[in-house]
Amino acid sequence: MTQLQSARQGIITPEMVRVARYEGLDPETVRRKVAQGTAVIPKNRLRDFEQIRGVGEGFRTKVNANIGASPLSMDVSGELNKLRAVLRHGADAVMDLSLGREIPRIRAEVLASSTVMVGTVPIYETAYELSCRGGDITDMTMEDFLATVRRQAEDGVDFMTIHAGVTRHALSAMDAQGRTLDVVSRGGSMLVAWMRWHRRESPLYEHFDEVLDILADYDVTISLGDGMRPGSTVDATDRAQITELVTLGELASRARDRGVQVIVEGPGHVPLDMIEENIRMEKDLCRGAPFYVLGPLVTDCAAGYDHIAGAIGGALAAFFGADFLCYVTPAEHLRLPDERHVVEGVIASRIAAHAADLAKGLEYARRREREMALARKELAWDRQYGLSVNPPYARMLREQSGIGAGDECTMCGEYCAIKRMRG
Amino acid sequence: MTQLQSARQGIITPEMVRVARYEGLDPETVRRKVAQGTAVIPKNRLRDFEQIRGVGEGFRTKVNANIGASPLSMDVSGELNKLRAVLRHGADAVMDLSLGREIPRIRAEVLASSTVMVGTVPIYETAYELSCRGGDITDMTMEDFLATVRRQAEDGVDFMTIHAGVTRHALSAMDAQGRTLDVVSRGGSMLVAWMRWHRRESPLYEHFDEVLDILADYDVTISLGDGMRPGSTVDATDRAQITELVTLGELASRARDRGVQVIVEGPGHVPLDMIEENIRMEKDLCRGAPFYVLGPLVTDCAAGYDHIAGAIGGALAAFFGADFLCYVTPAEHLRLPDERHVVEGVIASRIAAHAADLAKGLEYARRREREMALARKELAWDRQYGLSVNPPYARMLREQSGIGAGDECTMCGEYCAIKRMRG
Repeated sequence: MTQLQSARQGIITPEMVRVARYEGLDPETVRRKVAQGTAVIPKNRLRDFEQIRGVGEGFRTKVNANIGASPLSMDVSGELNKLRAVLRHGADAVMDLSLGREIPRIRAEVLASSTVMVGTVPIYETAYELSCRGGDITDMTMEDFLATVRRQAEDGVDFMTIHAGVTRHALSAMDAQGRTLDVVSRGGSMLVAWMRWHRRESPLYEHFDEVLDILADYDVTISLGDGMRPGSTVDATDRAQITELVTLGELASRARDRGVQVIVEGPGHVPLDMIEENIRMEKDLCRGAPFYVLGPLVTDCAAGYDHIAGAIGGALAAFFGADFLCYVTPAEHLRLPDERHVVEGVIASRIAAHAADLAKGLEYARRREREMALARKELAWDRQYGLSVNPPYARMLREQSGIGAGDECTMCGEYCAIKRMRG
Repeated sequence: MTQLQSARQGIITPEMVRVARYEGLDPETVRRKVAQGTAVIPKNRLRDFEQIRGVGEGFRTKVNANIGASPLSMDVSGELNKLRAVLRHGADAVMDLSLGREIPRIRAEVLASSTVMVGTVPIYETAYELSCRGGDITDMTMEDFLATVRRQAEDGVDFMTIHAGVTRHALSAMDAQGRTLDVVSRGGSMLVAWMRWHRRESPLYEHFDEVLDILADYDVTISLGDGMRPGSTVDATDRAQITELVTLGELASRARDRGVQVIVEGPGHVPLDMIEENIRMEKDLCRGAPFYVLGPLVTDCAAGYDHIAGAIGGALAAFFGADFLCYVTPAEHLRLPDERHVVEGVIASRIAAHAADLAKGLEYARRREREMALARKELAWDRQYGLSVNPPYARMLREQSGIGAGDECTMCGEYCAIKRMRG
């Protein structure tokens, strides 16, 4: 049975107990949320890992870090270094988005080493295998795709992005409307290529139940991908995006009916005045399914600093109810990130998640702020470092400024307001 | 006459014309806003500089960068390097917050080199001079303070922070309520020390009109400092803060009556659910005076990355109507920033300002987003770099990833969605 099927039968699983402990909730509350589908516990039944987490309403906001090699940058050990780095800095989930020669090996290593849930986008592997056979994504059959999903589920993948909402209807909405930047989702663009070549409906949409059957067997959580997400703030919240979202709502219901846990993916590039409506719409159309947003980036012009644009959007999105933030690194739109970039990305998203949880009144966040305020009042630097988002970095910053035995810092020296207020 | 006095008499000054051109507004609109006090043009009448800017309602959100040496880090050429760095990255204003031996020299050099408005906090120099005479801030007389203000105005300072709202009333509100982190404003703590020592009302409040007389003579814009701003999200929007804000509203009216242009300073540390109310309250209580916020930081736990916490808060504040963002650097709460930190700070604030202006529908921001979307669609990398917030850095990031003649990037290589959509 999947977590969802257990929850519906009133069974509190060991995973629900662990999630409840981490969230500071009682297990029955967690069970009820999972049964309603407003929370999920992504965990393949064949896999076990240390930090089992729930994603959903009333839980701490979770952060996902994407890693994975690309055809132009295939470095297995480099990807595993990135994995360790994002885990060290507090990622709650990792997605292996590898594309290219070493997909199976990287996935195996990530699944073996990750202490958190692992997600993938199976169509990438299907596409790569087709190209190895001298073909292209347009040659894909449903059997090809299902074979990939089954193999990855068998490997232990905990959640999978499936772009089943990229339909002819959504595509014609885009074509009729006109978009500045068309389709920027890698998976989405593959399905569009297939549909345009065959002039047929998406096989992932038409054969969605077959996908669900496999996912249910392994309790893989489905993450309904937003292949039609706008790639620019100029295109945000357009008819193609919302047409797809309506379909994702329908697919979310079908997944739940089949006992498959479901989360829904969202944009992307969203000006900050549109973030609230984007979150509310997803929650309404998808009956409260956990919402997993990429960023969102509140401007297109922060290339090199997209982690900051993403932290602005992510904080606001999580405050309005997004449950799961996919980080964006400073390398986004420019290159595959390196280890330094993925660390910056995780930290920026964790700041956003914490800020949102504080604003929503979550007790863990409020407690940490109180502790930091007291540590500052007492000029207790070790405690301040320990409470900050990257303790060794905070320590290094202050210590490099050449302060001696003084308990103030080089910003104010003897004019320290805190010392003065002590009288 | 000050800009405010001219505006009230229906005179459109050359400065108003320059501001109007930059903002894409007509000069009469600028004049009307200055006359109403919903916008200011900080510019000492003795000084001229290249980038004269307005700050206020309907204008582009402006960014201030603080520089200045401290007693523990006195490096004049280092501060001038910081000045050049923040100007190169698009700061609209700089404040010289130097404290220590070289205050007059640094101010002179900053005023000579800055192409943007320059602000100071005069009480710092008064405090330093008293310490040179073997005294302390508690020895300050109003003559000492006015002499500093006059000298700095004579030097050409364009705007000055005056903490005249730190009154006995605000202090007793704080004491009665209890605060986790008391007073964290350097200037505020000096006035509190003075008031507690003398058991008297603040001289800056009692002799406010004498300050205004000097400022009016030079058309120095007053920035009403928030010496009682909370130093932690735990204390945000408390009675001490709002008691002071009520007084700042009163002082803002008195400044305008005297013909002095006025902006009001605000926090600081504000959980994101409280940002909107903080902005609305200032606008209501201070009759639309431009609002100048520090950050605000949406969490206390981002030490080492406070520029990101500040960008989240700044974007939201500017969207709700804050007009002027004071940057926060990654070094905040840990040390005096170095040149690298001030650059990170300016860039983070500029991303926030741009994101807010986009969300408010400002045409310059919308145009830039459209141009970026088109540059991405065409994989026109040079144009993408040029439209990003730090062009040389964006270029370096991509070029370091070892891409050859290809027009895609190492993120997706041949699986580039944009190339696939070209068919």
